[in-house]
Amino acid sequence: MIGSDAGWQPVPYLACPLALEALNGQLYEVAEKVWIVPGLKVAQAADYDVMRGEETQLLGAWQLMPAECYVMPGTHCKWVQVQNGVVRQFATAMTGELHHLLLNHSLLGQQLPAQFPDEASFALGIEKGLNQPALLSGLFSARAARVLGSLAATSVSDYLSGLLIGAEVATFSERYRASRVVLVGEHSLNARYQQAMAARGLAVSCCSGEAAFSFGYSEDD
Amino acid sequence: MIGSDAGWQPVPYLACPLALEALNGQLYEVAEKVWIVPGLKVAQAADYDVMRGEETQLLGAWQLMPAECYVMPGTHCKWVQVQNGVVRQFATAMTGELHHLLLNHSLLGQQLPAQFPDEASFALGIEKGLNQPALLSGLFSARAARVLGSLAATSVSDYLSGLLIGAEVATFSERYRASRVVLVGEHSLNARYQQAMAARGLAVSCCSGEAAFSFGYSEDD
Repeated sequence: MIGSDAGWQPVPYLACPLALEALNGQLYEVAEKVWIVPGLKVAQAADYDVMRGEETQLLGAWQLMPAECYVMPGTHCKWVQVQNGVVRQFATAMTGELHHLLLNHSLLGQQLPAQFPDEASFALGIEKGLNQPALLSGLFSARAARVLGSLAATSVSDYLSGLLIGAEVATFSERYRASRVVLVGEHSLNARYQQAMAARGLAVSCCSGEAAFSFGYSEDD
Repeated sequence: MIGSDAGWQPVPYLACPLALEALNGQLYEVAEKVWIVPGLKVAQAADYDVMRGEETQLLGAWQLMPAECYVMPGTHCKWVQVQNGVVRQFATAMTGELHHLLLNHSLLGQQLPAQFPDEASFALGIEKGLNQPALLSGLFSARAARVLGSLAATSVSDYLSGLLIGAEVATFSERYRASRVVLVGEHSLNARYQQAMAARGLAVSCCSGEAAFSFGYSEDD
């Protein structure tokens, strides 16, 4: 991110709660006609979180599809609570990164053949994740079930994906007391989340992440 | 493990519930005067788990310090429920491996300096982990708190260690309804778990992992 401390020029985070419309007035001019959109932060009690980049997409999604809870799936999935156009709080789930780590660097992924889509294993993972969102207790099942012959070696990726997404949906939908959410992401990832959210009884609308970003970007102008 | 499918000779897992004393009669003779101790498995409903190696240690610990709940910290921490000498069930928490993965392969560990012991950050992590055992919701705080200046870059390891151990203790002590546990491991790791367990109100006794193994091994003879 060009506005991060490893980027072009550090731009301070704006604290939540923050009115989304206020983002327009807070652009950070780093050169003539060059602005950086600041990121958002949560820093209250022992609760810390940051986002940088997603806020532009969020602004667009909010204009396109007003709602109280946005979920932006990805490497670091963001759950954002909005009330009357004000971002009250948000939280990051490292779901995508964990899936990558577990599959590529942990015992769960060792000696795996090429992975294939497996709807049934994905659904089984979702069910377990929704029921046992305390992730530490379920992860190793991806190894044990394989060793014991109950999970195909080519389906570990989809099982883990379901497990992680299920745990995420259970955890954050409860924390934000969300019953309706807008998913902002690319189509196939939205579809994965939608399945877990439907199983949890959430009402879901989908917004293309690309469309949201374009709209948010033009709103910034 | 020499008895695993990647080892010397595959030895089948014994299913729980299993009487610990029965282990003696179930040694697997692979050559003259050479026996392999079989591992244990849980395979019921959608619940799968395996252990191989720890069962010998468990046998020793049970002889040395009879109890109903054993916790064996490590890369893959085992929680074992024993009733009247019968292993009812057990579960694996990938706590140690996750700590390694997050610190060495994830964004949380990127650009970190050498890590130093930090009691306060460890305790803060324990508190957060005990309160929010749904791990996905807390992990990213190790990044955000550092970026926002609230967690020293040299203390991320101890904070994460507390967070993971706290989440594990909250999750499994509730599942096994444990109020007293015997920790079986090496001294410094036992001490970490003991701190989290004390904060949770568990009564804890410690057993040296090495002593338990030696005793269990001699029991096998």
